[in-house]
Amino acid sequence: MQAVADGSRWMLKLLPAERLPDALVEFARRHGVKAGAVAMGIGQLKEATIAFWNGSEYVPRHLETPVELVSLSGSIAEADGEPSIHLHAVLGTADHGAVAGHLLSGNVGLLVEMLVETFPDRRFSRPFDEALGVRRLDLEPPT
Amino acid sequence: MQAVADGSRWMLKLLPAERLPDALVEFARRHGVKAGAVAMGIGQLKEATIAFWNGSEYVPRHLETPVELVSLSGSIAEADGEPSIHLHAVLGTADHGAVAGHLLSGNVGLLVEMLVETFPDRRFSRPFDEALGVRRLDLEPPT
Amino acid sequence: MQAVADGSRWMLKLLPAERLPDALVEFARRHGVKAGAVAMGIGQLKEATIAFWNGSEYVPRHLETPVELVSLSGSIAEADGEPSIHLHAVLGTADHGAVAGHLLSGNVGLLVEMLVETFPDRRFSRPFDEALGVRRLDLEPPT
Repeated sequence: MQAVADGSRWMLKLLPAERLPDALVEFARRHGVKAGAVAMGIGQLKEATIAFWNGSEYVPRHLETPVELVSLSGSIAEADGEPSIHLHAVLGTADHGAVAGHLLSGNVGLLVEMLVETFPDRRFSRPFDEALGVRRLDLEPPT
Repeated sequence: MQAVADGSRWMLKLLPAERLPDALVEFARRHGVKAGAVAMGIGQLKEATIAFWNGSEYVPRHLETPVELVSLSGSIAEADGEPSIHLHAVLGTADHGAVAGHLLSGNVGLLVEMLVETFPDRRFSRPFDEALGVRRLDLEPPT
Repeated sequence: MQAVADGSRWMLKLLPAERLPDALVEFARRHGVKAGAVAMGIGQLKEATIAFWNGSEYVPRHLETPVELVSLSGSIAEADGEPSIHLHAVLGTADHGAVAGHLLSGNVGLLVEMLVETFPDRRFSRPFDEALGVRRLDLEPPT
């Protein structure tokens, strides 16, 4: 991974065989990012798993053939002292169609380019919401 | 809604049953945002209406079942002294497909997370274009 | 094209018949942008060409009817002393479906609104990767 900053704005380049969201966890840990957003991400993945929340669980769909990473959006927070990444993606298939949803995992093919905007004075958290059964972003965690 | 800033960069969290674009109108009004962009938005909607501009009007498609909000992009301007929001979205369906277009309305399910970048020294407007029959963004309105 | 800045953040408005990526090349040249990202882009295109990388070449699909520009993401670098633009897009069709991939070209219909975030202290490059047969972003070019 390459990661360069201009103030609180970061550009990242992921290399072949790096994985999402793992590379973002490593980025957040290495640079102490406790609050941020993935504003854009494009590239190519050699495989990926997209999921749909059906109200009680994520229903996955695994794509084993290469796809274009056409849109990547997300948030960076903390949960249990570790980086917590939430990503949604639109993947472009060979027939120029789209597969879209929650990105459970992706394996970088050619490359992935990402713009990450951070909030250096903030700390986002992702506590587990018992009622809903999922972790949900909290922008103003109790101090 | 939660909304936290770091300079001119905002992260927003919308709660269940909040609506788009209404929540962004409220955000812009409350914080005096007269020029900005929705750089990213993800989450889950319990219902939404997507539209396609056919050259003379928006042709809507109403989705009554929950969808993933996979991509949200937009601009914040003013029209007639009120916030004017323009949003496009990619929605992920239960079969991991995509519905895409102009977002007329959305009703938040689990949550929506948004990154909004503002231009504090600018004032965007959205005057009605008589020839085209739509309101169009103007970045340098006459002063 | 209109282009207004607030620090290193730019909002762009493209007018009917302007083209992508040409308008971004012109923008980068005029304002000396040597490193940046297209964080969001929405609007309407009267025609566009989307492509899928099949491992050795881009397989294009030309859309001759108007589409919504629902998501636009990209990077701005330099190659051979000229701006080098990499764009991916999700296009919304009349049936509210999506066509997604690498955006080879687009012709603006009603308008296109774009948010571009730049890195004034950086210089990204896009050298040709002989092994892969494509140009790939480099965030830390040799000085």
